[in-house]
Amino acid sequence: MRVLFAAPDALWPAWAPALMRLAPEMELVRADDAVDPARIDAIIFAPGGSLDDLSPFVNARLVQSLWAGVERIVTNPTLTQPLARMVDPGLARGMAEYCTGWALRAHLGMDRYAQDGEWRNGLTPPLACDRQVTILGMGELGRSVAAMLDGIGFPVSGFSASGRPVPGVRVFGPDDLDRALAAAEILIALLPDTPQTRGLLDADRLARLPQGAWLINPGRGTVLDDEAVLAALDSGHLGHAVLDVFRAEPLPRDHPFWSHPRVTVTPHIAAETRVETAAPVAVENLRRAMSGQPVLYLVDRDKGY
Amino acid sequence: MRVLFAAPDALWPAWAPALMRLAPEMELVRADDAVDPARIDAIIFAPGGSLDDLSPFVNARLVQSLWAGVERIVTNPTLTQPLARMVDPGLARGMAEYCTGWALRAHLGMDRYAQDGEWRNGLTPPLACDRQVTILGMGELGRSVAAMLDGIGFPVSGFSASGRPVPGVRVFGPDDLDRALAAAEILIALLPDTPQTRGLLDADRLARLPQGAWLINPGRGTVLDDEAVLAALDSGHLGHAVLDVFRAEPLPRDHPFWSHPRVTVTPHIAAETRVETAAPVAVENLRRAMSGQPVLYLVDRDKGY
Repeated sequence: MRVLFAAPDALWPAWAPALMRLAPEMELVRADDAVDPARIDAIIFAPGGSLDDLSPFVNARLVQSLWAGVERIVTNPTLTQPLARMVDPGLARGMAEYCTGWALRAHLGMDRYAQDGEWRNGLTPPLACDRQVTILGMGELGRSVAAMLDGIGFPVSGFSASGRPVPGVRVFGPDDLDRALAAAEILIALLPDTPQTRGLLDADRLARLPQGAWLINPGRGTVLDDEAVLAALDSGHLGHAVLDVFRAEPLPRDHPFWSHPRVTVTPHIAAETRVETAAPVAVENLRRAMSGQPVLYLVDRDKGY
Repeated sequence: MRVLFAAPDALWPAWAPALMRLAPEMELVRADDAVDPARIDAIIFAPGGSLDDLSPFVNARLVQSLWAGVERIVTNPTLTQPLARMVDPGLARGMAEYCTGWALRAHLGMDRYAQDGEWRNGLTPPLACDRQVTILGMGELGRSVAAMLDGIGFPVSGFSASGRPVPGVRVFGPDDLDRALAAAEILIALLPDTPQTRGLLDADRLARLPQGAWLINPGRGTVLDDEAVLAALDSGHLGHAVLDVFRAEPLPRDHPFWSHPRVTVTPHIAAETRVETAAPVAVENLRRAMSGQPVLYLVDRDKGY
């Protein structure tokens, strides 16, 4: 099979050897290799490369995204080929570790303690079994996070558009978002960027959270109404926000998130796709497409993910 | 049964109602109740109260500590009665949550990120499965911590005086402390205070750790050579120390741990005994002692715990 690597140049040195080692039958070409687009069997895609027009790739049977988020390709009007998201088992585990680490930091009240000579004891937190966590979004990532938090003992609630049951999680459906929020001492937003989720966490929704709740957003920046988040932090209704994703990235230096004392900015690190665990998934899916088998993690264009 | 509550006054309001509710047959008396010591059947003990001389309690069948650490009673020369440690299931869970939270903070490199406008990406940590954690002390607490870390995916090594096997943990025995340390990117010290453990983590032992290792000590402050820890932090050999216990508590305001940029001091909060989960254990043990059954968690005076 002949596969076009349509991704920023910086990704080539790590991905190309891994892909070629796993699939010696594959001819991996780049945009400047001047190969006839009609002779490309599949495309490996990450945003930020030079590929804008997918229409010449009339025989490509699959566009395999290297990333979980596909909003920058699914809306491309020239995309007619099947599109698959990356579901990297390493990414899901890394996301679970990120969310669990920050949830425990919130739960344990680590930020109460400062190196100022004050011996602040007498502030025993409850056990995790008495701390409610709610996860918005019960996809691969949400379920991975839920499983790790459940293993530690947190009672986990979830919210999803489908309301589909998840073992160990009390799942709220689309009509019950307010109830899901009301239980959330720690709220983890893992929603995709879709017309339905844009601006979902606005002033009204944030007001449903318990007083002093923590917001952790490693999903998509567009889910937040930034001004509403800042207002809720200012009033103390929101105790702290840990934000990994933003409407503009890198987060502009003059954005108030940088200077707010109750905000922690991390630089879009929660959902790192790791070559070691993701390359085998891409290769498996390319082979499925070549042999006519159903591909994994096919994107539903109406839903946008 | 008639039980003397020999503990600081501040503990009475929380403990007395819980104990009496669980054991209506118990008469709970205090030091100033002027009851004949020979008529006391058992003693509930926490350090910091007025009881120093245990010799008049000739008929007491058990001294039940409210805390896990018994170094302030086991060395009392007037103690002839059997002494039991507290093994609070809530405490073990709280300890596991504390250690897991701080281990994840170390693992995720949370402290790399500052609210200074710098977008520091490209520092993906490994997954937990590629991060070695070593726990010194494989008692109730060490095993509880090991189980939670194992659940997250960390490879966990342990060190214990017995070298006894623990499921899911690679246990090193007393001759292999150096090997246990050499593997420890994150070292968690959960050793009791005994003549064998005092000053165990000295300059030589700390030098065995990998460069940049984190030290988390929620066990006993005497296990550390404070000067050696500070020197290892200054040289950068030790990446960070999270210290919850100290040779003197509260930690004196002029102690260099307070001002060292690579030290986090927490005020002896990791091992909080919680009345809800510990009172049933005390009552169970008192009843065992009264009825002549073997008591749980009996202290071995030679070992000191």
